[in-house]
Amino acid sequence: MAGDWLEQIHWNAEGLVPVIAQETGSGRVLTLAWANREALALTLETGEAHYWSRSRGKLWHKGEESGHAQKVRAIRADCDRDTVLLEVEQVGGIACHTGRHSCFFYELRGGGWAETGPVLKDPHAIYRK
Amino acid sequence: MAGDWLEQIHWNAEGLVPVIAQETGSGRVLTLAWANREALALTLETGEAHYWSRSRGKLWHKGEESGHAQKVRAIRADCDRDTVLLEVEQVGGIACHTGRHSCFFYELRGGGWAETGPVLKDPHAIYRK
Repeated sequence: MAGDWLEQIHWNAEGLVPVIAQETGSGRVLTLAWANREALALTLETGEAHYWSRSRGKLWHKGEESGHAQKVRAIRADCDRDTVLLEVEQVGGIACHTGRHSCFFYELRGGGWAETGPVLKDPHAIYRK
Repeated sequence: MAGDWLEQIHWNAEGLVPVIAQETGSGRVLTLAWANREALALTLETGEAHYWSRSRGKLWHKGEESGHAQKVRAIRADCDRDTVLLEVEQVGGIACHTGRHSCFFYELRGGGWAETGPVLKDPHAIYRK
């Protein structure tokens, strides 16, 4: 499709789009976060994932505090162009603020959420300044 | 965590949660859709993905028209429990209403969205009754 790729994203009422980050090679789904126009534009320009932090209400260059940036290998969108899929290399091998490889570490077992996946680094050690 | 697993999901203001479907084995991300409580409960009960269709405003048993159901092998959630990740077997090998394997067939190339991935089946042949 010709035209401005950002115009062709179907942003939600808040001007955001959900963005899945999937690890190149392993295929592991690491995170789901949200991006606004500025975040997606910066993701392309810099080659590193940028999001909009809904909890903090500000632009978020993933890894800016932890060092755990996501280097972007491909930017994909779905048929409705209302979801973006980033293929990324996860710096440090840790995507989650809990110190795990992936944020998707809860698995439903026996009717409850069980934690899976080792904590690779103490979160206090990740975020100390 | 003990307690009702559905209570521990952080539903958005519309009572929905985004649900990523990832293909078991290949690791391909197939779809992102949305679920309400009823849809997630039915997903567990039936072993097939159920969603809430925002465009049609109704419960949606994926494959109900196309036959392309998603058989659920695992139900995962992320650290904030505001996103669900289903590990699925994609019946018919087609997740997308365009007749493609995955909905994520647009890739950003040279500043524009390029279509990738073959159309495996004519959508008119999928949805005729």
